Amino acid sequence: MDLSCPVPITNYDKITLAHGGGGSLSNQLIEKMFLKELGNSYLEEGHDGAIFDLPGKLAMSTDSFVVNPIFFPGGDIGKLAVHGTVNDVACCGALPKFLTLALILEEGFPMEELWLIIQSIGQAARDAGVQIITGDTKVVEKGKGDKIFINTSGIGYVPEGRDISPSNCRPGDIILINGNIADHGVAIMSSREGLEFETSIESDTQALNKLVESVFSVTKDIHVLRDPTRGGLSSSLNEIAKASNTGIEIYEKQLPLSEEVKGACEILGLDPLYIANEGKLLVFVPEEHADNVLKAMKQLPEGKNSCIIGRVDNKSPGMVRMKTSIGSSRIVDMISGEQLPRIC
Amino acid sequence: MDLSCPVPITNYDKITLAHGGGGSLSNQLIEKMFLKELGNSYLEEGHDGAIFDLPGKLAMSTDSFVVNPIFFPGGDIGKLAVHGTVNDVACCGALPKFLTLALILEEGFPMEELWLIIQSIGQAARDAGVQIITGDTKVVEKGKGDKIFINTSGIGYVPEGRDISPSNCRPGDIILINGNIADHGVAIMSSREGLEFETSIESDTQALNKLVESVFSVTKDIHVLRDPTRGGLSSSLNEIAKASNTGIEIYEKQLPLSEEVKGACEILGLDPLYIANEGKLLVFVPEEHADNVLKAMKQLPEGKNSCIIGRVDNKSPGMVRMKTSIGSSRIVDMISGEQLPRIC
Repeated sequence: MDLSCPVPITNYDKITLAHGGGGSLSNQLIEKMFLKELGNSYLEEGHDGAIFDLPGKLAMSTDSFVVNPIFFPGGDIGKLAVHGTVNDVACCGALPKFLTLALILEEGFPMEELWLIIQSIGQAARDAGVQIITGDTKVVEKGKGDKIFINTSGIGYVPEGRDISPSNCRPGDIILINGNIADHGVAIMSSREGLEFETSIESDTQALNKLVESVFSVTKDIHVLRDPTRGGLSSSLNEIAKASNTGIEIYEKQLPLSEEVKGACEILGLDPLYIANEGKLLVFVPEEHADNVLKAMKQLPEGKNSCIIGRVDNKSPGMVRMKTSIGSSRIVDMISGEQLPRIC
Repeated sequence: MDLSCPVPITNYDKITLAHGGGGSLSNQLIEKMFLKELGNSYLEEGHDGAIFDLPGKLAMSTDSFVVNPIFFPGGDIGKLAVHGTVNDVACCGALPKFLTLALILEEGFPMEELWLIIQSIGQAARDAGVQIITGDTKVVEKGKGDKIFINTSGIGYVPEGRDISPSNCRPGDIILINGNIADHGVAIMSSREGLEFETSIESDTQALNKLVESVFSVTKDIHVLRDPTRGGLSSSLNEIAKASNTGIEIYEKQLPLSEEVKGACEILGLDPLYIANEGKLLVFVPEEHADNVLKAMKQLPEGKNSCIIGRVDNKSPGMVRMKTSIGSSRIVDMISGEQLPRIC
């Protein structure tokens, strides 16, 4: 057994909140530690889920949810746990079918709140057309957890002819998104203890599998699908640019953002590009299909605000650039950790 | 949305540690709350994993691990997390293939300990012949978790002709087990802070998928497979008796138990029937195959101490009885919660 720690412990000998933020420190952990020890072609794909032949082509994904507070404007931890995994499976180009559900409960957690959450899970699963097929419950002592943590793992099957992967991104691809960014993160912040501020912003948490199918109804020639959650739009775009060694340019003017979120970000000094979403879909599609895909997405409620936000080229490979409103260009870096812990 | 809580809140309006103990209170939670809201034919099967056609016959399972301490004699939380899910999938009659891995880390958790655990996971996965194919990491603030919680979900495929389910248990079935019971629970207790006592007992945590295959190498006519973990042997036997509406009789004289565990149980006033195992396999097999299955199990290191511990009949359906050493018979009830929290 190799006792030396692969992550330089001069910088970090303890886990920090940023290691769970989905940014570069999370990536460091994955690349230097998890891949080093557990690496295989599936994990190395760097996708949110895994696709495998067994004997059909299936996709499987897992996510633990530790969001705080557990009830927030527009949703709760249960809904989030269903949507998050459904969306990860759907972003593999798969039709999500089954979820597993594992709960870690803190001693003393009110039964009625659990019941609300279980109902929310049931409703979200029915709405998304998936079934919870097995589960597990653990309880830890008071003070050794925080109310409720939920893990969902999901599986679905990938119809013939679909090939979705961050490494499939190609110069010329058009980048679409289905609406306003940063709603989830701002909704959580607005309800976080000690950080309360007046807003009517709700989380955008929603299942994206029907929207994904509407995209495929136009063409199978879709390159990348991604739901930008923790770390915001910037993290997803950076991961895709890096995985495909392409350059990504987004246009500030075309980034959909509500006035309220814009205002909240200005007050709090936050950049909406780095704030978490929970119901947003990024679609990378060859230019010839972009208009039809956009039209198809707009047919569904969850896609009615879809728009083009950028395109892929071969300038500065592996990097994300933003053409600002005043016409200049700036690099959009990956964030080192989530701006706010426990956003999902 | 139904706001009334289905579990009688006169008795329990808060989650207690016993709700995570795998006993009757866990069952109450599953039956009255989870099944009520999430019920489907898979969940209602009451199995540790789910078997589904998609398009082959696959088995999927999930478990979260919150064991304390995270390093204990004979293993650690990482090893346990691999073995636990591998065994649940194998006990569906499946060949486990892939695992997902989701970590909830407490801020401040030492990186070196994480690395030890990740290596342990890697080793256990390689030994069991499974791959970790996707994962997730979350971090919670110091004091909002406890070092590390791990979820693994697993999938495998079920070869033609196998039909394993607790409801398949039939009068006349012989019950086999692969060795000493209660080792895991006693090993954890012996290393638990404030409860330390001198012992050389190690956890029995191990992967059982090869042992399961040795059973099937004799015959496909196996009725039930089960790894009795939380809640001990008694919980598993009670669940199987209930699911199949049969009576189960076990023989105290034939129950394999080390002298050390017996001594520890006497000192602590605990019943080994209720103490957790992590590497034990129960096999329910028609009498005509029992000797050959026993012989096959003994060929493998993890089965070398296999023996017959009981049989199934139709007396007192749904109940478990033990013929004691002095010849009397007593009912073996299901425990209400685990004797010790966070045993796995």
